[in-house]
Amino acid sequence: MSTQQPPSTTPPADAAPDPSVLAELREMRDSIDNIDAALVHLLAERFKCTQRVGRLKAGHGLPPADPERETRQIARLRALAASAHLDPAFAEKFLTFVIDEVIRHHRAIADDLQERHQS
Amino acid sequence: MSTQQPPSTTPPADAAPDPSVLAELREMRDSIDNIDAALVHLLAERFKCTQRVGRLKAGHGLPPADPERETRQIARLRALAASAHLDPAFAEKFLTFVIDEVIRHHRAIADDLQERHQS
Repeated sequence: MSTQQPPSTTPPADAAPDPSVLAELREMRDSIDNIDAALVHLLAERFKCTQRVGRLKAGHGLPPADPERETRQIARLRALAASAHLDPAFAEKFLTFVIDEVIRHHRAIADDLQERHQS
Repeated sequence: MSTQQPPSTTPPADAAPDPSVLAELREMRDSIDNIDAALVHLLAERFKCTQRVGRLKAGHGLPPADPERETRQIARLRALAASAHLDPAFAEKFLTFVIDEVIRHHRAIADDLQERHQS
């Protein structure tokens, strides 16, 4: 970096950040923490729903996975993401991440029911 | 059900499911779809916050990742998950999944700023 006026507005990485910058960072992080609490509670509610679906499916011999429904869910969430300015590819990755966990739960419910019927 | 019947309540997997079961399944899926729409909109809002954090960090030479904050976030979300009857291990996996995406965004913002300063 030159001793003359450098074009960069970025201070060196080891400089102590401005207290007002840290205050702004803290405020944004408070919002992120609030959103995360809401996300966790919604996810808890979602798994309550999918646990009920899992018991219903297992009790009536329906398969745990449903690829056609998943395809519709992905298309819908990608469209919702686009309208909310969220990367649709991320929304799809997120849904796949959640559905993988749900299928794991459904298999566990089905195995548990089968074991109880066999014992 | 007669007392002669076997104790299993699971019909064979190839039997057509009861219409009332399908109606119940549909109703649960409607709730899941509503929750998913809420999740996508909250995630969009979360990324808006983290994009702002990313620009602030890059503009003041702060590092994109912050392992200490992540450790606090994970502990907090695990506790919130437990109180909401969500598997804390899943809540942690979820946060890591989201933070990985955020760090990818922060690196892109930092690279972009650096490129602009160099050009």
